[in-house]
Amino acid sequence: MRYSLKIQYIGKNYSGSQKQPDKRTIQGELEKAISTLIKTEDKKAKKQEDELNESSPSCPPAFLPSRIKAVFSGRTDAGVNALGQVVHFDTNKNLVASEFLYSLNEILPDDISVSDLKEVNSSFHAQKSAKNRHYRYELINRKCKNAFDGDLLRVKNDIDLERMQTALDYLLGEHDFSSFKSSGTLNPSKVCFIESAKVKQQGDKVVVDIIGNRFLYNMVRTIIGTLLEIEGQNLKAEHIKEVLEAKDRRKAGKNVSPHGLTLIKVQY
Amino acid sequence: MRYSLKIQYIGKNYSGSQKQPDKRTIQGELEKAISTLIKTEDKKAKKQEDELNESSPSCPPAFLPSRIKAVFSGRTDAGVNALGQVVHFDTNKNLVASEFLYSLNEILPDDISVSDLKEVNSSFHAQKSAKNRHYRYELINRKCKNAFDGDLLRVKNDIDLERMQTALDYLLGEHDFSSFKSSGTLNPSKVCFIESAKVKQQGDKVVVDIIGNRFLYNMVRTIIGTLLEIEGQNLKAEHIKEVLEAKDRRKAGKNVSPHGLTLIKVQY
Repeated sequence: MRYSLKIQYIGKNYSGSQKQPDKRTIQGELEKAISTLIKTEDKKAKKQEDELNESSPSCPPAFLPSRIKAVFSGRTDAGVNALGQVVHFDTNKNLVASEFLYSLNEILPDDISVSDLKEVNSSFHAQKSAKNRHYRYELINRKCKNAFDGDLLRVKNDIDLERMQTALDYLLGEHDFSSFKSSGTLNPSKVCFIESAKVKQQGDKVVVDIIGNRFLYNMVRTIIGTLLEIEGQNLKAEHIKEVLEAKDRRKAGKNVSPHGLTLIKVQY
Repeated sequence: MRYSLKIQYIGKNYSGSQKQPDKRTIQGELEKAISTLIKTEDKKAKKQEDELNESSPSCPPAFLPSRIKAVFSGRTDAGVNALGQVVHFDTNKNLVASEFLYSLNEILPDDISVSDLKEVNSSFHAQKSAKNRHYRYELINRKCKNAFDGDLLRVKNDIDLERMQTALDYLLGEHDFSSFKSSGTLNPSKVCFIESAKVKQQGDKVVVDIIGNRFLYNMVRTIIGTLLEIEGQNLKAEHIKEVLEAKDRRKAGKNVSPHGLTLIKVQY
């Protein structure tokens, strides 16, 4: 049986989503929680079976549940949050979705939660079936510090939202995003299709929403860094077009803080 | 000279606003930061003076600045936040408000900030001149856990907002709030005047705003606890009137978590 999960997490206390030895990761915590629950189910089932066949103790189960593997729609870096990350996993257990979801939330840390759990067709793949991903970057645009800003990046100079939107428009459509990828991107293709890229103001917050079929390593954070370079150095919006066409990471702005970045939704 | 400050803080990492030996408090951090800056000003002034009178080294300053004392509009408990706490302090230094505010924010911890600093008349007193205080309590009303809830209290059963508003209306005006005070209130009078008490829904959040001339120790959190007891046990809104009239702390609900409580504004 294959199950899909929709999960939320605050990335601050984790070394990213992807499992790494000796590091606290979202995948690590999730797999541990799912495996623990499935083992508990196994024990319960075995006990019931033993009780039914008291005279002839049952054989060891044919399938000894090894650690569950959770497949994510995509990896998120250290410090990045998710509101709608999608994950699938396989098990030979028939799970009661509502009960399993409740128990998972009980044993997961406070900064990881599950909002949806359902059985899916075995052809569904959290990463490969995804049509697009929606990322949001939030930052504070204010001169003064405020205790309530949390870990968000604060930009002191005024941001020209119209110019920022014009710059974002240059990213729409299919482009080679080599200029916006950090080294470490495994996939050789650097071509992504950006469906939508919008900036809006919410009080002292500037919110950038980008939807694309795929994103390279650090791509959103480097796009934001480039937009902020345009603002800080008072460049023209067209500067981002030059960066894009150069296909050279050294032309783009710096990679901004991960704390403002959230994976909002994955569409299938 | 007397100066007044408007400050913000996240209470989570502090043992309340009021200074206590060997504990991390808002007052402690603020007084340390102000004192450090004023000592720096002193050293600068002394150096300038020495340079002017190179031949005759200056006498030690007549007034050796001791530690600054910050007077708060009122104390907030461990874990309680403030968006508009007001504080005054006295110094014999003439401060350039905008510079001093900037420097204060630079040396204060990230979870304490200052948004306003101005010279005030010596008759102004942050606590005694205050006309009213506005507190807000925020909680989550949802069955499921969500990683983004932070430290807010989560209530699983549906809240009847109309009933909650009716209950809050019973608190309006002047009453003896003995039923809603924790032991430890020093002031012998338990009479407070509640000017406004309103509840509203914001997405999954329930937000209660209470404005009153003064509040007893733990009063807002015990009012919220009593409102939640009415919801949890499906009592009538009038229950809160009975609790109020009993003048007996044992009749009220429990003291809820401090993390949802914020001092929004102090009016003078």
